[in-house]
Amino acid sequence: MKKKILIIGAGFGGLTAAKNLADTEFEITLIDKTNHHLFQPLLYQVATAALSPSDIAVPIRSLLSDNKNIKVILDEVISIDKNNHIVNFKDSQLEFDYLIVAVGARHSYFGKNEWEQLAPGLKTLTDALVIREKIIEALELAEKETNHELMKKYLTFVIVGGGPTGVELAGAIAEIAKETMIKDYKNFRPEDTKVFLIEAMDRILSSFDKKLSEQAKEDLMNMGVEVKLNAKVENISQDGVHTNQEFIPSKTIIWAAGNQASPLLKSLNVETDRAGRVIVKKDCSIPGNPEIFLIGDAAHFEEENGNVLPGVAQVAIQQGKFVAEVIKNQIPPERRPSFRYKDKGTMATIGKAKAVAEIKGLKLSGVIAWLAWSIVHIFFLIGFRNRFRVMIEWIWYYITKRHGTRLIVGK
Amino acid sequence: MKKKILIIGAGFGGLTAAKNLADTEFEITLIDKTNHHLFQPLLYQVATAALSPSDIAVPIRSLLSDNKNIKVILDEVISIDKNNHIVNFKDSQLEFDYLIVAVGARHSYFGKNEWEQLAPGLKTLTDALVIREKIIEALELAEKETNHELMKKYLTFVIVGGGPTGVELAGAIAEIAKETMIKDYKNFRPEDTKVFLIEAMDRILSSFDKKLSEQAKEDLMNMGVEVKLNAKVENISQDGVHTNQEFIPSKTIIWAAGNQASPLLKSLNVETDRAGRVIVKKDCSIPGNPEIFLIGDAAHFEEENGNVLPGVAQVAIQQGKFVAEVIKNQIPPERRPSFRYKDKGTMATIGKAKAVAEIKGLKLSGVIAWLAWSIVHIFFLIGFRNRFRVMIEWIWYYITKRHGTRLIVGK
Repeated sequence: MKKKILIIGAGFGGLTAAKNLADTEFEITLIDKTNHHLFQPLLYQVATAALSPSDIAVPIRSLLSDNKNIKVILDEVISIDKNNHIVNFKDSQLEFDYLIVAVGARHSYFGKNEWEQLAPGLKTLTDALVIREKIIEALELAEKETNHELMKKYLTFVIVGGGPTGVELAGAIAEIAKETMIKDYKNFRPEDTKVFLIEAMDRILSSFDKKLSEQAKEDLMNMGVEVKLNAKVENISQDGVHTNQEFIPSKTIIWAAGNQASPLLKSLNVETDRAGRVIVKKDCSIPGNPEIFLIGDAAHFEEENGNVLPGVAQVAIQQGKFVAEVIKNQIPPERRPSFRYKDKGTMATIGKAKAVAEIKGLKLSGVIAWLAWSIVHIFFLIGFRNRFRVMIEWIWYYITKRHGTRLIVGK
Repeated sequence: MKKKILIIGAGFGGLTAAKNLADTEFEITLIDKTNHHLFQPLLYQVATAALSPSDIAVPIRSLLSDNKNIKVILDEVISIDKNNHIVNFKDSQLEFDYLIVAVGARHSYFGKNEWEQLAPGLKTLTDALVIREKIIEALELAEKETNHELMKKYLTFVIVGGGPTGVELAGAIAEIAKETMIKDYKNFRPEDTKVFLIEAMDRILSSFDKKLSEQAKEDLMNMGVEVKLNAKVENISQDGVHTNQEFIPSKTIIWAAGNQASPLLKSLNVETDRAGRVIVKKDCSIPGNPEIFLIGDAAHFEEENGNVLPGVAQVAIQQGKFVAEVIKNQIPPERRPSFRYKDKGTMATIGKAKAVAEIKGLKLSGVIAWLAWSIVHIFFLIGFRNRFRVMIEWIWYYITKRHGTRLIVGK
């Protein structure tokens, strides 16, 4: 009788694992609570009306339809019973011989969950559409607002968190508010709009080289973004953001500050780090259960040098491949190799023809970094259709400065 | 002091009127409760995952950004005070010298509004996304369903109403359930899926020539659609549709049967027809108020021969142009010409390489009608970007038989 492998999550890690286990003797079930694989690195472009959801999301099912040994299920796992090798759904359950948990992370409000309503984060397509509508609605409300104070609130955008997502959002929103969409409004002008990027540390993009952080900050400031460093958020209200430095009146606040692993991991009851990520062994399995693996943003993996791997696509992809190999060859725990991460570099885009990149010690910025960023992202997108569409959209936007998907659909 | 023109609704009628009044001495405000102009003839393709919302919707604002005398406002008109020349919003109001009401129609459940939850209709982008998710979710639920009876319910799709929208939906859903998406599911086969088209009259597409109705019915049946004529819906429940002929168990029911004009029109208190459309005079104005015009689906316009104009894009567009001319030249009521509709023909597509068209007495079907349909719809789409994208999507779909936008985004 065939051995059963369950994979929870069809992000970069889960999908890579599934692909690498395709057409083997195992019976594989890939479970996700959405029906699509999402290319998260470009999600901020959906949130800023540059791309359509369907440009960066592909039905998981159609990616695996040719692989006879893989079943795809749209459902949400409620808990994992590691001792009896069962995962539980709302009204059913599945058994497994091997389990790969690749559930990713949600954003964390550091205990202040009431802030989520006021300052949404960006992880799913739904998040992106919520933010897109928030931004466009703010401009629409400003257009018909007669009270000047209130209008200023609508025209002030605050992004909390100076990591890659925060920087990319701030840059894209500055383009919208200072250059592109603004043309179409007749009641206010570019200088009436404000974009703030709030970072608690002393520099943005702290995972990058200091020089690149500086460069990114300069670029953002030239685009009209006010970058606030060493600024800790103390409270968020209907009226704006309170930091340890000031109060910023704003109706549009976006959260890009920090992640929290899925609560599902608690049911494994194993040791986790402060972000709720499971601390895994060198083979990505959990202590005591060599048949259960955790990969990607849900895992806390420490390299020999004590450095903990970041929550980026490359880590998830490489771990997915690694774990698939271990299972395929059914390597007994004691003989398993240690996972080794090959850093292929990190990049963040800031705006048109502006980006920073660090590739094997090489530090790039400006147009070169931006071109590298564009090529890499087109290349890693799944499916010819999406590559083609995104490329066309970018060229279209570059030439016309018109956003392709400025829609408020609502519910 | 400049005269004020208010236009309510930025559909085909309202937008055409605005465009034709651009750069005149009038001060124009175009009001819509959405931020986009929607190309409704292709809405069914968004509902069936062939196109993205942004392919057929354009921000109203960006269409008119160059016209200095036109202001665009995103808001909902609550009532019209025809005597004091005021339109009221939730918490503001606007005065007018001329008013053009082009608010379109919603679908009508003939008093059974409780059916709307069970059988959504198709008029807005939100409607289309709701239907798209309903269809995809039904297939997903069937894939993991073990109870065979329930699975059959998930795999049965019922479309109520055999007009163009109903026929187009039935054809597109048959392609999904019998041919394209079905490939990706491993738990059931094409013959397990059923698509019903229910029509109360003795033929579908009753506005077309009898021969074409026959042809369309045959085409649908060849695609696997069960067409039920003289079938009146008596009840709709969680479990399916009861007609005067039978009970059809189904979890996915779509309503395409009949329209109801906007309730806003009541505030005009003038005579309306059974569908709630305002009965307008020969110059499209309302009795007693020559400065208030009603056009498009919201108007009941009777031609000399007693024939009432249908609720199609061409009527709205031509009326929009006509009314704009009357206002531009400030023609006094007694000297105004009568609006005359030039019928440019009607078409409906059934499926790949299948359509019916009636153009100036010429009756077309099959590939020729389908090509004509495709060209006309690409041509009338607004904006080069959308024309290009839709064309690419169609070619892509024609070749690969893969739907571009099979996403469940949810909320």
